[in-house]
Parts: sequence; structure tokens; C-alpha cells
Amino acid sequence: MNAITLLDYAGVTVFAATGALAASRKQLDIIGYLFLASVTGIGGGTFRDLILGVPVFWVGNRVYVLICALVAVLVFFTAYRIESRYKLLLWLDAVGLAAFSVMGAAKGLAITGSPVVAIVTGVLTATFGGILRDLLAGEPSVLLKPEIYVSAALAGAAVFTLGALVGLPPYAADLAGFVAAFAVRGGALRFGWAFPSYKSRPGRKPEDIP
Amino acid sequence: MNAITLLDYAGVTVFAATGALAASRKQLDIIGYLFLASVTGIGGGTFRDLILGVPVFWVGNRVYVLICALVAVLVFFTAYRIESRYKLLLWLDAVGLAAFSVMGAAKGLAITGSPVVAIVTGVLTATFGGILRDLLAGEPSVLLKPEIYVSAALAGAAVFTLGALVGLPPYAADLAGFVAAFAVRGGALRFGWAFPSYKSRPGRKPEDIP
Amino acid sequence: MNAITLLDYAGVTVFAATGALAASRKQLDIIGYLFLASVTGIGGGTFRDLILGVPVFWVGNRVYVLICALVAVLVFFTAYRIESRYKLLLWLDAVGLAAFSVMGAAKGLAITGSPVVAIVTGVLTATFGGILRDLLAGEPSVLLKPEIYVSAALAGAAVFTLGALVGLPPYAADLAGFVAAFAVRGGALRFGWAFPSYKSRPGRKPEDIP
Repeated sequence: MNAITLLDYAGVTVFAATGALAASRKQLDIIGYLFLASVTGIGGGTFRDLILGVPVFWVGNRVYVLICALVAVLVFFTAYRIESRYKLLLWLDAVGLAAFSVMGAAKGLAITGSPVVAIVTGVLTATFGGILRDLLAGEPSVLLKPEIYVSAALAGAAVFTLGALVGLPPYAADLAGFVAAFAVRGGALRFGWAFPSYKSRPGRKPEDIP
Repeated sequence: MNAITLLDYAGVTVFAATGALAASRKQLDIIGYLFLASVTGIGGGTFRDLILGVPVFWVGNRVYVLICALVAVLVFFTAYRIESRYKLLLWLDAVGLAAFSVMGAAKGLAITGSPVVAIVTGVLTATFGGILRDLLAGEPSVLLKPEIYVSAALAGAAVFTLGALVGLPPYAADLAGFVAAFAVRGGALRFGWAFPSYKSRPGRKPEDIP
Repeated sequence: MNAITLLDYAGVTVFAATGALAASRKQLDIIGYLFLASVTGIGGGTFRDLILGVPVFWVGNRVYVLICALVAVLVFFTAYRIESRYKLLLWLDAVGLAAFSVMGAAKGLAITGSPVVAIVTGVLTATFGGILRDLLAGEPSVLLKPEIYVSAALAGAAVFTLGALVGLPPYAADLAGFVAAFAVRGGALRFGWAFPSYKSRPGRKPEDIP
């Protein structure tokens, strides 16, 4: 099993776990756990494969769906023991984000050869599953928070792509991308890192605009 | 016209009607009815075909879009007579859910030969149109309710797939899947069936977590 | 550069600008601008290409992603000067809607030869990016407002398709479609045009239904 396959399984597993934790927060039944775990675990990669025009990864390999199902059942029976499911969700999401930013960029680069496309598919793969989870579970979207999130995926995809372009051995480029993304997102979670912003005025409600 | 084609047209028709009823609840104009009816009627099948990598079903056959348009116009002129549009919406949605759980599983099984994929495409086809409708119309998502919903689609897809694997004649497997899904969802609507749940604590709001 | 290519770049540019303006209203950081500008700028066309089963347009041509990035940076440094970002967003959205309704219909017609499919892909291409933007940015969805929106896309796609079918030269059909869509949407923005509606009762909340 090479590093990319490992990142792939790891990403699906931890994203599936975040979906199941969101299901637990919403007090869904076991099928709700299965559904959210699957959507979150395989959503980002599905979108990536559709855009790249290649067969969707889990259609040809049942292992992915079975991982999601297994994780959902496991979380269903253990989530009640966890003190802060939301914190665990955020940290697992950070691991998945880092794994998928590299995985998505690697697949995009392998198929199109274009660094620009590689970076875009890296970011999409890493963020799409979590966005779907938050949308479906009615969680506050991580996109609208001041903390750094998409940037971490961008860092991971860019570092990996750069590493691959300058000829690093695959393991090294994968690792560098993963570490870059996880360090950025982890720093944001731990220390509240955020970009300096322009402090633009907040948008008014449409009905308040004369 | 075989049983699968019949299920297909029936599913598109009733899902289009639920989209139009949602448009009526939101007091949209006629084009809003057309839009929501189309998205709901053909959304699930579109997603299924993209994932399976086959041509999207309504691109090659204009009948589907015309059904959605016809249903939208019909509901536009009659919805004001209906006493409870939401109840009608839920029951039509149950019919569509049952039809599409079988239809989606049948197409997934025919194309990939994998029972696991068949069950996933059955569930996705059956639930995706309704999820899109609720998201776009701002209705409370049926996913987050305690009542059984995704489970009904799972029951229909699983019963059909099992029936097909043990060699039931197509009509029988189709019918068994349809009846299974409709019975489960109908029971949930009529009697409030829900899975026993762990009664996990509800999730706290992110800002309340220390 | 022919008229369709021009409409394509123009549509991507103005939709990217609306995404960046939404990011400004939500006080996101620069990466949030990049993300929303890209999703809005290339979202509708991505969906169109997936449905038509052709390679996604921006995967083979990096110019589109670079346009989105450039627009995002430009808006990031200038949006604070704009008095009403929401009004500007709405008018740019109208330009993009008109450009993409023609562009989407032209591509659908060229690939399938079906006028019905051309009109549907025109409407989808024109509206999907904006719907995604509103969903992700938590803006009130333009779909649920009484003003005419989807209808404008429908007008543009239908006028273009009709023009192409009766044999207008490409430039003329493109222009007629663009003008039709922009006139309808512009009229709705300026004069509050709305369809006469049935004044159906608003939907009750599910919990209020006996």
C-alpha cells in the first residue's frame, strides 16, 4: 500500500467519523449515522472524480462504502462517551482535510498534468465533504468562520504540487503537503489563527438597503 | 413499457409534484413551480447517472422534462384547493422514494454488477431529489427529523437487490422493493415510526463549548 | 474571439465578482474571496458540462481559474469603497445570468441538438452558480424572492434557441438572447417586476399542521 492509498483510506475514515459525530450531535438514528458518514467520507472524492471525468472511486471498490458503514456503527455505539463531540469532529476534520488536500492534488496532477487544476481539485476534495456535512446536518458552516480553513487545504495542495514539480520523491511530497495543511489548520484550531482582514463593513440585510 | 420504466415515470411525476407543492407553500410564481418541479423530479436520477458514469437520462429523452413542466402547471392551477399541501407532499414523496429506491438500485446493479453499489445508488436516487427540494425551498430537511426516511429507501433498495440476486423475476423483485420501501415510509408517516435511539445528548452550540 | 467565447469569459468574470462581493459582505479573509469567487464563477458551467457528459471547461483551460483568482484579489482591495455591495452584486449577477443563459443554451444545443435540453442547460448554467453562492454564503436565496429571476434565464435561453432554430446568424441569436434575459432581469431589479401570482396561502410550519 503506497502513501497515497494510505492517505485516501485515512481521509475517508476520519471524514466518515466527522459525519457520524454530526449525526450524534443531531440525535439521528443509526441510518442517519450511515448516511452522513457516507456523504462526508466519499463526497469530496466523488466530486473530484466527476470533475476530472474519471470513474468515481468508490463505484469500482466497495471497500470505501464498507469503511463508512463500519465507522458509522462504531461511532453510534461510542459517541455518548465522548465529552466534546464537536471538538473531536473539528480535529478529525483537520486530519481529513490534510489527507484529502494531498490526495486530491495528486490525482488532479496525475490526470491533467496541470498544477493549477491540481491545486483546485486538492482544495475541492478536501473541503467539499465537510461543506456537504455542515449543509445537511444544519451545522454552522466552517466556511463562514473567521478561522483559517480553506487556506489550510490550499497550503497542502500547493506544497504537494510544488514538491512534485521540483521532483521530490512521492513520499516526501505527500508528507510535506500533509504536514503543511495540518499545521495550518491545527494552528487555527489551537491558537485561533486568522488572516488579518480588511474589517470591511458587514453586509446589511437586503431589506435595509434603501 | 416494463415495470422499471413505469417506476421511473411514476417517480419523476410524483417528485415533480412535491417540488411544485413546495413552490406553492412558498408562494412562488409559475417559473418557480417549473424550476422546483424539475429539480426535484430529475435531480436524484441525474446524480445517479453522473456517479455511474452513464449519459444523464433526461438529456436523451425529452419526455422527462416535459412531464415535470406539465406537473408544475397542473399543480399551479390546483394547489390552492388542497387543504394540506404539506401532508400531500409527504405522501407523494413516499411514493417517489419507493419508486426511485428500486429504480436506482436496478440501474446501479445493471451497470456495475455490485450489490453494494446498487444499494448506495438506490438510496441516493431516492433521497437526493427531496434533499435538493428542501434545501432550495428552505423547508425543514426531512433528514433531521426523528421519523424514518433514509431507512425506507435503504429497505427498498436492499429488498430489490436481494430479490434480484436470488433470481426473482424482474417484476417480482421490483414490486417487493417498492412495497418494502413504501410500507416502511408510510408506517413512519402514519404511526410516527422511529428507530429506538441512544438518546445521545443534543450537540451544544459551538460558542457554548469551553 | 467569437461572441460565445466573449460571453463565456464575461459571465465567469462577473459571477466571480458577485462571489467576491458576497465574501466581502460576510467579512471573509482573502482565501474566502478566492473560494466564493471560483465557486460562483465556474459552478454553473461545471454543472452544465457534467450533465452534457463533456470535459469540464476549466480543467482544460487554466484561464478560467486565473480570472476568478484575479477578480477575487481585485474585489478584496476595492470592495470597501463601494457604497452598496449588495446592489452591485445583484446587477453584476444580472449580467452573468444573461451571458450564461445564452452560453449554456448554445453548448446544450451544439452537443445534443435538442431545443428542450438547450433551454434546460441554459437555465441551469445561468442560475446554478448564484444558487451555490447564496447557499454557501448564507445569503437569502434569490429563488425564494417574489421578483423575476429564473424567468429571465428562461427568456434568454428560449430567445437564443428560437433564434438559432430559425437560422439567425450566431451573433444575432447570441445578442437577442442576452438582451432578452438582461431586459427581463433588469426590469425586475429596477421596477420590481413580478409575475401575478395566485396568492396561494403561505405554507404552515410542519408542527402547526394537525
